[in-house]
Amino acid sequence: MAENNEMVMDMESKNRQFDEDVEQILELLQESNYFKAREIILRYNEVDIAEIIEEILDEMEVEKAIIIFRMLPKNVSVEVFSYLDGDDQVNIINGITDREISFILDELDFDDMIDVLEELPANIVDKILDQTPKEERKLINTFLNYPEDCAGSLMTPDYISLQETMTVKEALQHIKTQGMDSETVYTCYVKHGGRELKGIVSLSALVTADEDTLVSDLMHTEYVYLNVYDDQEEVAEAFKKYGFLAIPVVDNENRLVGIVTVDDIMEIIEEETTEDIERMGGVMSDDQDAEYLDIGVFRHVKNRLPWLLFMTVMLMITGMLIAQFEEVLSQVIILVAYLPLLMGTGGNTGTQAATLIIRGLSVDEIDLKDVFKVIWKELRVSVILGIVLSAFNFLKIIIVDGQPAPIALTVALSMIVVIVFAKLLGGLLPMAAKKIGVDPALMATPMISSLTDMVSSCIYLFTASVILGITL
Amino acid sequence: MAENNEMVMDMESKNRQFDEDVEQILELLQESNYFKAREIILRYNEVDIAEIIEEILDEMEVEKAIIIFRMLPKNVSVEVFSYLDGDDQVNIINGITDREISFILDELDFDDMIDVLEELPANIVDKILDQTPKEERKLINTFLNYPEDCAGSLMTPDYISLQETMTVKEALQHIKTQGMDSETVYTCYVKHGGRELKGIVSLSALVTADEDTLVSDLMHTEYVYLNVYDDQEEVAEAFKKYGFLAIPVVDNENRLVGIVTVDDIMEIIEEETTEDIERMGGVMSDDQDAEYLDIGVFRHVKNRLPWLLFMTVMLMITGMLIAQFEEVLSQVIILVAYLPLLMGTGGNTGTQAATLIIRGLSVDEIDLKDVFKVIWKELRVSVILGIVLSAFNFLKIIIVDGQPAPIALTVALSMIVVIVFAKLLGGLLPMAAKKIGVDPALMATPMISSLTDMVSSCIYLFTASVILGITL
Repeated sequence: MAENNEMVMDMESKNRQFDEDVEQILELLQESNYFKAREIILRYNEVDIAEIIEEILDEMEVEKAIIIFRMLPKNVSVEVFSYLDGDDQVNIINGITDREISFILDELDFDDMIDVLEELPANIVDKILDQTPKEERKLINTFLNYPEDCAGSLMTPDYISLQETMTVKEALQHIKTQGMDSETVYTCYVKHGGRELKGIVSLSALVTADEDTLVSDLMHTEYVYLNVYDDQEEVAEAFKKYGFLAIPVVDNENRLVGIVTVDDIMEIIEEETTEDIERMGGVMSDDQDAEYLDIGVFRHVKNRLPWLLFMTVMLMITGMLIAQFEEVLSQVIILVAYLPLLMGTGGNTGTQAATLIIRGLSVDEIDLKDVFKVIWKELRVSVILGIVLSAFNFLKIIIVDGQPAPIALTVALSMIVVIVFAKLLGGLLPMAAKKIGVDPALMATPMISSLTDMVSSCIYLFTASVILGITL
Repeated sequence: MAENNEMVMDMESKNRQFDEDVEQILELLQESNYFKAREIILRYNEVDIAEIIEEILDEMEVEKAIIIFRMLPKNVSVEVFSYLDGDDQVNIINGITDREISFILDELDFDDMIDVLEELPANIVDKILDQTPKEERKLINTFLNYPEDCAGSLMTPDYISLQETMTVKEALQHIKTQGMDSETVYTCYVKHGGRELKGIVSLSALVTADEDTLVSDLMHTEYVYLNVYDDQEEVAEAFKKYGFLAIPVVDNENRLVGIVTVDDIMEIIEEETTEDIERMGGVMSDDQDAEYLDIGVFRHVKNRLPWLLFMTVMLMITGMLIAQFEEVLSQVIILVAYLPLLMGTGGNTGTQAATLIIRGLSVDEIDLKDVFKVIWKELRVSVILGIVLSAFNFLKIIIVDGQPAPIALTVALSMIVVIVFAKLLGGLLPMAAKKIGVDPALMATPMISSLTDMVSSCIYLFTASVILGITL
């Protein structure tokens, strides 16, 4: 965490000031006026300096970003480095000397260091590990081997270990000699024998207790913990559910191997949400860390093409089904004018239902066992919406378009059926996906609109053929 | 926070166990076997007991939920109460005596109490306030008057105040006598004169410092703070950006009035995300606290109808535009079979771009000044996707459908134009919305697909009339 912060005033005027300053810094560097540039930069705190460097890297001014990074006081540079995105860290690493790299890695928190090593090319990592003491090298290798996106890759081995037999006074003395980062010090861990976790005790319990109290009297022996291989989504869920500042992580032998702290979870929640939103919009990205502007054109194509091809095939089938109704359409060509209305309404109403259900499933407001409640709710909602929208369309077709009643009736009747069908499909598909272990988010817009397009056009044209008495 | 937790084992088997236990509890209550029911309930921690009560309230078993609530040891019941949703709290409040209500409100953390009072009907609130000491009543009234969804409604006035002249030893002694909740104790606030905030000092700094050190030597005088009227979205942004555990809140006269802690922010982030996702799916909900299953049918209709009506009107216009091409369609009726393909592809490709840009804007990966980068990126991506998809369709129409080349060419050419148009529209509309101060999330699926439907069908039918040489 930044240990030196600035005032946050009015957010908007602050952002304006920031943009102006970034531009001025770039100009000053252009003129080689490093002294003045440094002065402006050092008005900001570490989080903001990291943002300045990211902005400048976004402008492709890698060299200038490195100049700025090197201008920083050493302790500030490490903090700033830890706030940079993975890609930007690699950019900086590539531009500084091995000595500077070693210094940064030494000073970083353990979990941040692991994140950096994961991003670096293997040959650089090997070179760095060669210079690391054997014990630490072993620990680093263990951490590097945890699969990405699991609790093991999020945790830090830096935590406070206490013993049951310590008094509060001894415990506080022990904490003082360790002197760690604030986010890791607020929960202390009491280990049993070798490394098995026996209990936890919060720093607030220690500082508010009498100094002769034994740690064993304060600690909780029942606590929430995670396994190193738990998926990061489960990790985020545990933090959201319990509201803790840190959760211990154990290995398969129940030995305490590290802790995950809440400040690292915010990012995870954001990444998981981005993944959901992108999937709901028909984009399949394999790396949520990468930012839109940093992703190359071909990767954008690769992320978007699979769903588009799927939907194209579905739309082709829809077209072939419509072609079956050629007889109806050629006799009453005006029916074509209402085809988009029916298809669009199906897609829109289905998407609404799917959006609500997918979100409800993801924040645990809806359970699989609520399936009948969902059906009953969507059924009533869709009947009401169906009646309102068909009445509206019926009147418009008669009054504004001046079409005969059978046409208006065809549109109105098929619209009710389409809306009910689309709402039920939108409600049920995400639940079915979850049931069979597929991400419900994949069942949003693209899937729902493909299916409703197909079914809506058939319902509409079939209704038309019946009402208008045309044999297919 | 729950002070007494249980083990989290394998998440899935735990969930199964939980569901079974809830069912068993309901059965036991049915048989009036309260003793056994209580035994099962007390195996769980407070967070989980709250979930049990919520499950039972979802089953409409209000009376049983109240029986369970009354079974709990008094201190547990207050914790459990604080974890319930607003609606469920009101359900419980309505079923217990005034005395029980007073006890709970007295024991709740101040910010939780304010949340409860905000949910209760005015006459009950008045009755409660009548019994409250004058000073506290004044404070409660001030808090109740902060607008919902602002920093003032999220903060708690319970924080540790220190004085500059205190030594570390005195400060720790002061903290010990205050003895507050863990989430509020980890950052202490140093006030100047009356109530103006002078600096902040973390508990970790205090416990790791020498006991004779002065607080003034440890405190940071530059710090991040919020104004009581800052929107909750800004509050969440500040926590995400800086990773702090707590942020002080000041009023318009710069006086410290409370602090916001990180555990209350998780919920806000979830609410804000839900709002974004729902808006992107065409649902306008006015209350993110309400759960899908708890929302009545008519409110669901009300939340969904506005966008549906807007989209219906857009689709009507699309239909009227298509009717202008009646001549083309009646001469070459097979063109209708490819209309859904063109409209669908426009909607799908546009939605993909809009989803990425909206999310990028919301997590600050994309700035308004990146508009040309977005255009350039989407232009290249859409040309490549356009070529791939049109080639695919061209071949399919000739080979599978056996249609003549001019039809296939019409579809292929208009498809490239539609995709480029849709991607640019999807990229630019959210940015334009942000520029004029409208939520970009409103520019997703419903808006984009309405507009692309309209434009795609015109591009397609106009291209057809040109290539097939039909005068309109």
